Amino acid sequence: MKRFQVVGIGNAMVDVIAHSDEEFLAGNGIGKGIMQLIDMNRAVDLYARIGPAREISGGSAANTIAGVAQLGGRTAYVGKVKDDQLGLIFAHDLRAQGAIYETPMAEAGPGHETGRCIILVTPDGERSMNTYLGWSEFLTSADIDVAQMAQAEWIYLEGYRFDGPDSHEAFAKAIRACRGAGGKVSVTLSDPFCVERHRDAFRRMIRDDVDLLFANRAELLSMYQTTDFTAALQAAAADVDLLACTEGAEGAHVCTGGQHWHVPAIPTQVVDATGAGDLFAGAFLWGLSNRYDPETCGRMGCIAASEVIGHIGARPETDLRALFSQHGVL
Amino acid sequence: MKRFQVVGIGNAMVDVIAHSDEEFLAGNGIGKGIMQLIDMNRAVDLYARIGPAREISGGSAANTIAGVAQLGGRTAYVGKVKDDQLGLIFAHDLRAQGAIYETPMAEAGPGHETGRCIILVTPDGERSMNTYLGWSEFLTSADIDVAQMAQAEWIYLEGYRFDGPDSHEAFAKAIRACRGAGGKVSVTLSDPFCVERHRDAFRRMIRDDVDLLFANRAELLSMYQTTDFTAALQAAAADVDLLACTEGAEGAHVCTGGQHWHVPAIPTQVVDATGAGDLFAGAFLWGLSNRYDPETCGRMGCIAASEVIGHIGARPETDLRALFSQHGVL
Repeated sequence: MKRFQVVGIGNAMVDVIAHSDEEFLAGNGIGKGIMQLIDMNRAVDLYARIGPAREISGGSAANTIAGVAQLGGRTAYVGKVKDDQLGLIFAHDLRAQGAIYETPMAEAGPGHETGRCIILVTPDGERSMNTYLGWSEFLTSADIDVAQMAQAEWIYLEGYRFDGPDSHEAFAKAIRACRGAGGKVSVTLSDPFCVERHRDAFRRMIRDDVDLLFANRAELLSMYQTTDFTAALQAAAADVDLLACTEGAEGAHVCTGGQHWHVPAIPTQVVDATGAGDLFAGAFLWGLSNRYDPETCGRMGCIAASEVIGHIGARPETDLRALFSQHGVL
Repeated sequence: MKRFQVVGIGNAMVDVIAHSDEEFLAGNGIGKGIMQLIDMNRAVDLYARIGPAREISGGSAANTIAGVAQLGGRTAYVGKVKDDQLGLIFAHDLRAQGAIYETPMAEAGPGHETGRCIILVTPDGERSMNTYLGWSEFLTSADIDVAQMAQAEWIYLEGYRFDGPDSHEAFAKAIRACRGAGGKVSVTLSDPFCVERHRDAFRRMIRDDVDLLFANRAELLSMYQTTDFTAALQAAAADVDLLACTEGAEGAHVCTGGQHWHVPAIPTQVVDATGAGDLFAGAFLWGLSNRYDPETCGRMGCIAASEVIGHIGARPETDLRALFSQHGVL
């Protein structure tokens, strides 16, 4: 048995979550429902404009790993923070959830800080993300512990990290170590504009190195440059062994070996959509690692996603196993 | 018209809020439902033991001022943070709510940090508070701007600050400046054990300088060293012009000029009791400053308290004026 069921790699950050109306988004040049990268100056300026906020640890792959950990999975995370108050918060919350997190912190001092994502939640529950990457941008291959990657059944790579040139080599190193030891590789496309920025690199990686691809509808359409969702699903299913594609209120599609399941979403009042895809992936990977069939893994993903969109913040607050039991998938 | 309706003075801090069970409280020497002062070492140790948390600006009087501000009141706050990430969060959240906050930050560097309160919320919604005061402990008379105090219809003093020896003079300076300009003085007893620690100083201040006293049942019983609540109410009503005493699910008592109103609580599912008394005071002061009668102010207080106990965090999340309208008090 490998030490870890899932090891995630991504942008380590704390979410700064505030409510906002549509006018505020428009008036401040914020694209609704997507992730925009911002620099420290913009982060300070935007923060001064938003209403009262709360701080909850986030980071896409870190949310996924928090989900795996909350389910009782053996899991670890790799991502870079600084030795500052937000960095300590990030590290605490992941470890307190039961994940291993050993990436060395950048030393305290002037300069870049721990990354943060200013998330504006509109009344419809949609989230618009403004990410100051901070130290998470400087994840390099030196931060990858090959022994840890070799101990992973699955590694899970956050597409967002493709925005950092030095992280491509980090991903390559992790993939080599994991696959070399018989582990498997999963990746999430993260965001349609992130796909737009790195389509070729994503495509190469997916074809050559990825066993399981996570995406949502918009990301898949962007990846395969089509408006035909069925065609995009088919193209992706041809590129990877296993595809799990979420489609919001329409649920999720799971494709493998020529089979296709459409799993329904759990009807939920959307309070804050942040983390829906992350928790879908966490539950799906946990199910897979525990030998559930792909369709059941998809159901678990949809249940976990429905939990996280029912409250503010992108980490689970309810016992996910109990929810799985209630829905008859455990 | 004075520039400020209410100026609050208290411990500036960020709440670190986690769920816990009763066993955790017992196993870690945490007194349920009360506030315990802890040092930095204990804060670090306790933080490492608790589950995933979220950070939301708090501080008792700061919550009160956030309530006044959210209601549209002209309000300011005085309390000390450091120029660190938590200090910036505290300052942001208060200003974003519309309050004036100009207390100079302590400079960045080693040593004490911005204060924080590790709040453990048990399944019954009760909160147990573990406060590392940090820089909020070092509020001195130098931090009191006499011009600002003279511009206040009401000042609002947080009883907790009596734990800081240098803050007694700060309070005295604020009282002199406020009263000298025709303003009035309100104080909250904060916590039964805080009353125990400073009973004589509280008693002297209440008799000599306080126009409006806020307390809850346990604090009032502690103050007047009795188990007879009616006797405690009568004793307090004899000491101050106006008394507002909360009694949890039993609502609140308002006493002035020989009159006594018992205002009912709004039935609410308690998610997190933190801030109930703070928001009661904020709404009460806002009402008073807007010339509502004492009983109506008590009703406003109970409505605001019911809002804040219905969610995690001690700052209002719903439009309090809209709630007042719904309940027919506006």
